[in-house]
Amino acid sequence: MTSLLETEIHEQPQAFARLLDGERANVARLAARLKALDISYVTIAARGTSDNAGIYAKYLFASALGLPVAMATPSLYTLYRKPPRLRNTLVIGISQSGESIDILAVLEEARRQGAPTLAIVNVEDSSMARAAEHVIPLHAGPEKAVAATKSYTTSLGALAMLAVAMGGEGLAEADLQAMPGHIAAALKTDTAATAIAEGLREIDDVVVVGRGFNYCSAYELAIKMKELTYTHAEPYSSADFLHGPIAILDERYRVIAIAPSGPLQANQIEFIHRAQARGGRVIAISDNPDILAAAGERLRLPAGMPEWVSPIAAIVPGQLLALRLTEARGYSTDAPRGLTKVTKTL
Amino acid sequence: MTSLLETEIHEQPQAFARLLDGERANVARLAARLKALDISYVTIAARGTSDNAGIYAKYLFASALGLPVAMATPSLYTLYRKPPRLRNTLVIGISQSGESIDILAVLEEARRQGAPTLAIVNVEDSSMARAAEHVIPLHAGPEKAVAATKSYTTSLGALAMLAVAMGGEGLAEADLQAMPGHIAAALKTDTAATAIAEGLREIDDVVVVGRGFNYCSAYELAIKMKELTYTHAEPYSSADFLHGPIAILDERYRVIAIAPSGPLQANQIEFIHRAQARGGRVIAISDNPDILAAAGERLRLPAGMPEWVSPIAAIVPGQLLALRLTEARGYSTDAPRGLTKVTKTL
Repeated sequence: MTSLLETEIHEQPQAFARLLDGERANVARLAARLKALDISYVTIAARGTSDNAGIYAKYLFASALGLPVAMATPSLYTLYRKPPRLRNTLVIGISQSGESIDILAVLEEARRQGAPTLAIVNVEDSSMARAAEHVIPLHAGPEKAVAATKSYTTSLGALAMLAVAMGGEGLAEADLQAMPGHIAAALKTDTAATAIAEGLREIDDVVVVGRGFNYCSAYELAIKMKELTYTHAEPYSSADFLHGPIAILDERYRVIAIAPSGPLQANQIEFIHRAQARGGRVIAISDNPDILAAAGERLRLPAGMPEWVSPIAAIVPGQLLALRLTEARGYSTDAPRGLTKVTKTL
Repeated sequence: MTSLLETEIHEQPQAFARLLDGERANVARLAARLKALDISYVTIAARGTSDNAGIYAKYLFASALGLPVAMATPSLYTLYRKPPRLRNTLVIGISQSGESIDILAVLEEARRQGAPTLAIVNVEDSSMARAAEHVIPLHAGPEKAVAATKSYTTSLGALAMLAVAMGGEGLAEADLQAMPGHIAAALKTDTAATAIAEGLREIDDVVVVGRGFNYCSAYELAIKMKELTYTHAEPYSSADFLHGPIAILDERYRVIAIAPSGPLQANQIEFIHRAQARGGRVIAISDNPDILAAAGERLRLPAGMPEWVSPIAAIVPGQLLALRLTEARGYSTDAPRGLTKVTKTL
């Protein structure tokens, strides 16, 4: 029987297409209203996988819209009750369930301060959707597996749609329209992912590296590896990794480099060589022939994606890798130990 | 022979006192100038240990000054050449050496945009100090061990002095003046740290947890454990850890909870109990009798520190633990493998 997780991973092209079709008009209206305001900053509140979508927005909104993005510190809104002033700030809360209590508290405080608020949620009838002034529903359909997959890629999509609609420099709507096809192409790495997963069965320690637009991908793949396979997987920017933690690398480690084509290419190849020089074996997730050639093992992304949309497809081979490693180790794919779907932390 | 690292750890009370004495007038002048400007945001650029000092500022500046803090995305300034607009923004670069190339690029771009800039550096004659409009030198003296210790606690101190001088709500200058004494008291955990380090010799996996003001302490202790002892140490907010990664915990893990007294106390005790229920053994670094009692092993902080200054002393038992574990394993304390003191990433 196909697991919920596998089913949901494979639903992503359709889910993404539903989001694009279903929210075009809503996002255009929202963008027009936001552009009429004097916004110079964005604050994003989210936890876990949704927080990783926020990291994507940090790079996208800063580079294409010129807007610095701060990740919220929810405990200042809840436990400390000393929230910052959100002047000229768009506040975005992201949550699959729409029920994260501390993220809700950030949205509520932002409304109290009169800041524009946006909830990006999969469950439209949820506390966060009711609390925020604006909502982008993800249209991912019910997500039943505990590990989030289609709610992550559609969250990236919702953020990307907003950046396009706000006139983001160099962002073409057509590149987003092509993503259901690119996600479907990325799903074809399943055979390669299954083989690589087999080789990871006895590996306890993985470092996942990404930078720039795919810094989020490193975080998201690491959380999937931890949640599902109980591997000690740690995410890094390649720059930060060279700035200290590279000391831990040895032959017991695997390094996964998520490195689609883009201005970071030379940088990424140098990183792969330095990791290999320390004995680390590198698995590359990339469309780029030179990066793939530098690595020992490879998961090939479809060609033709500009870097700014690449995280939407680049996580997919990683999701498959985590799924197949979970199966290879005989663990539960749908309800990993120690986890519940909605965590209600303050 | 005493190692450079041990010497520098023990120099911290004196280094901190030199900073307080040497920079009081400069920081007061700087604060007056910044208060005359229309600042509503702070952006901090830093790498590694200095970035962890930035996490402290994120909580301190937001809660006491109402200023949201964004961590910069240096690659947008360097490799992508698409920096955000830094409107009404104070830009702070932190670096022991003052020579981090990508952090320098953030300061230079901020000056081009006319934003106020501050370099917090230990080496006064450095590129970052020359590039920024304002400088707070750390007065830590030459830091020769590759693992940063006294430059970290003095970086926290420089940020705290600025928050006090800018009129931060609830921040008393006297609490900073007491810190050299509290750091000296925290150094007395050495015997306990040596004993706990002995018990960690065969442990590969450590989770370091902190939240709120001590979220930075979790990151900083994790980086020390990785750099020096090659332990796979991963930092978490206790909230994020419960939101997924708790799945990895089992009896092979040690959890280090850095949890001084404060509004998070009930939360931290609950976290310790949940980690223990999953088989994790918990080492607490705290002044709080209830938190210490909940944990299996303990490193006691001095009483009488308000939470906002606690990170300055709370890292000290962790530094000692990393030092003693490095020695117990027979590794180099002063020049760990794979590391150089100044990393020049773009």
